[in-house]
Amino acid sequence: MLTKARVMAPGPTEIPPTVLAAAAQPILHHRTEEFRAIFAEVSDHLRSVFCTTHPVLMLAASGTGGLEAAITNLTVVGDTVIVISGGVFGERWAKIAEAHGRLVHRIIVEWGQAVEPDAVAAALVAAPHAALVCATLSETSTGVQHPIQAIAAITRNSNIPLAVDAVSGLAVGELRMDDWGIDVVVSGSQKGLMIPPGVAFISLNQRAWKQVDAKAAPSFYFSLRQAKAKLTEDKLPDSPWTPSVSMVCQLQISLRLIEAEGIEAIWKRHELLARATRSAVVAMGLTLFAVSSPNPGVTSVYSPEGIDSGVIVKKLRQEWGISIVGGQGKLKGKIFRIGHMGYCDRTDILATIAALEVVLSSLNVKIQLGNSVAAAQNVFLTS
Amino acid sequence: MLTKARVMAPGPTEIPPTVLAAAAQPILHHRTEEFRAIFAEVSDHLRSVFCTTHPVLMLAASGTGGLEAAITNLTVVGDTVIVISGGVFGERWAKIAEAHGRLVHRIIVEWGQAVEPDAVAAALVAAPHAALVCATLSETSTGVQHPIQAIAAITRNSNIPLAVDAVSGLAVGELRMDDWGIDVVVSGSQKGLMIPPGVAFISLNQRAWKQVDAKAAPSFYFSLRQAKAKLTEDKLPDSPWTPSVSMVCQLQISLRLIEAEGIEAIWKRHELLARATRSAVVAMGLTLFAVSSPNPGVTSVYSPEGIDSGVIVKKLRQEWGISIVGGQGKLKGKIFRIGHMGYCDRTDILATIAALEVVLSSLNVKIQLGNSVAAAQNVFLTS
Repeated sequence: MLTKARVMAPGPTEIPPTVLAAAAQPILHHRTEEFRAIFAEVSDHLRSVFCTTHPVLMLAASGTGGLEAAITNLTVVGDTVIVISGGVFGERWAKIAEAHGRLVHRIIVEWGQAVEPDAVAAALVAAPHAALVCATLSETSTGVQHPIQAIAAITRNSNIPLAVDAVSGLAVGELRMDDWGIDVVVSGSQKGLMIPPGVAFISLNQRAWKQVDAKAAPSFYFSLRQAKAKLTEDKLPDSPWTPSVSMVCQLQISLRLIEAEGIEAIWKRHELLARATRSAVVAMGLTLFAVSSPNPGVTSVYSPEGIDSGVIVKKLRQEWGISIVGGQGKLKGKIFRIGHMGYCDRTDILATIAALEVVLSSLNVKIQLGNSVAAAQNVFLTS
Repeated sequence: MLTKARVMAPGPTEIPPTVLAAAAQPILHHRTEEFRAIFAEVSDHLRSVFCTTHPVLMLAASGTGGLEAAITNLTVVGDTVIVISGGVFGERWAKIAEAHGRLVHRIIVEWGQAVEPDAVAAALVAAPHAALVCATLSETSTGVQHPIQAIAAITRNSNIPLAVDAVSGLAVGELRMDDWGIDVVVSGSQKGLMIPPGVAFISLNQRAWKQVDAKAAPSFYFSLRQAKAKLTEDKLPDSPWTPSVSMVCQLQISLRLIEAEGIEAIWKRHELLARATRSAVVAMGLTLFAVSSPNPGVTSVYSPEGIDSGVIVKKLRQEWGISIVGGQGKLKGKIFRIGHMGYCDRTDILATIAALEVVLSSLNVKIQLGNSVAAAQNVFLTS
């Protein structure tokens, strides 16, 4: 049976057709004025997405490369790094730091919960000489959104800068780098920015740059000082190494779409899609995994009693072409996660919920067909 | 609010991504061996879609051009043409014939009804010297499927050939040119064949070719004899005039998809999608327009009392990005039509029904949200 492929994962997300078409344009040489003008436009637009006046650097890497660049530029071997660890991606900060010989002071958060800002304040007292606090905006492994604004309100009044992994959170949930006083924001390309994976983004404020200069940590490919110099010191911006040319061209188109929709409208859209998805899941009789601070880009749900969540994920993909994801790490088999980020609209939610109802019903879960679709429809009707 | 564009019209239909990508390939010259090999593959695959062993000719024209080619090659000025007229497209046969000085003997069928085969038998008696019977497989203006097999069973035993407009019917509903004994089948590119509009197809059996030769009607661009000669007389097939090169390249990809799915599986898929759509519409409390012989590619529905169907069509497109269509001719404002042909799957149906429920609800139509989605889900669950 013909079945269209639909991606409803917390990244990569679907890509708008005009952005796909941009990848089919002839390659440009990256040292030409033509490409550098695109690079300039993209760099400029990125600042408004990050809500910052500081430069946003592009690295040819996936999001993890951006996280590594933050650790290796802002700290040196033997430094202590405070990490909020409440899921796979919080823990990734710790793994990167340890791989590079940094000491990790973990703030352990129960998976499915958001960190208490007080715990961050306590860690700053417990590890006063730490060089960096590492937080995660959108912990997609658990479906939690951490309270970055409250955390930044603490770190900005300390002498330890805050680095935020916003890989899957940028252009999805509210994030105001300058207003909130975040020192470092890292993101990736395949989530809210609606292009394929392969470009990482990082922006640093003055306090962070001062620390990078002071640490003068060894680095080459991920040298942020080199990247900033190339981006800002010339008449037209450039990058030290070959950038991902076609993806930058795609980004030009997707950032124009983001500019046209407006960053605050985008945050609101994701909030709406998340609210509809949560209402639908609850109406199905299922239990949300992340209750207190749910993520606007992904909804995590306990699998019904006795059913491995992987079975639901597989059936939905094989029988309906819809790609959601299961649990990671210790949540494998226990939860499934529906992504609703980036190029995603209300119809995608209705379609996914309707197909999920059929899948659960075929697994003998007691489902009243159409009931959870109605819950999502009601959210849309009353918004 | 970001809203994706989705086409749920009875043509043009959506186009598979790999078929879209084929249009982004460099242009080929049409007299090269490379292109002629593609032309050969496409011509070969088309025969299995038409269920015929006869050549299928490609004309750079929309479907109407194909209908005109049938009339102007199989008849001459002053000939009588029997036309089954029960909608815009049946009537189009008549208009083409009259524009070219042919006399039209109409079999008038109430819009929304399928023709009675007896009426065709009677027309053959009433107009025994007619040169052609013109029928429509899928009358998309009313949502009716005419009984072509039964009509062909009558015409094949007469001395008047049958030409079938299968523009929107081919690769959607069952059609067996050779087995059923249809003399001429005309189709278009933007429906079941899943490429953009702009190519017409026509296939003639031996009886039809004999009549074309005997009539020797004046023609140039639409000379079917020229087209057949170029297609069949050379080692590699060719066309007399410049073909739609990029669209033929797209057709190569879409025909491979059709070959992989299988023509009978495609007919079944459309039957299933149509059944789910009809069940949903009835569960909404609405009334189907074409009841006795509904079309597998389009479902026509009376607009609720007091609501111009154009309002529903407009709201669904403007607020939900979903393009269905209203009524044509005397049905304007009275019915709306949901297309489910070509590149269309079960999720498309669930999504469209769910969005339609919200639109009708916002127009104060008494709708129990989710109810008609459940009707469609049940069709899919039990099939």
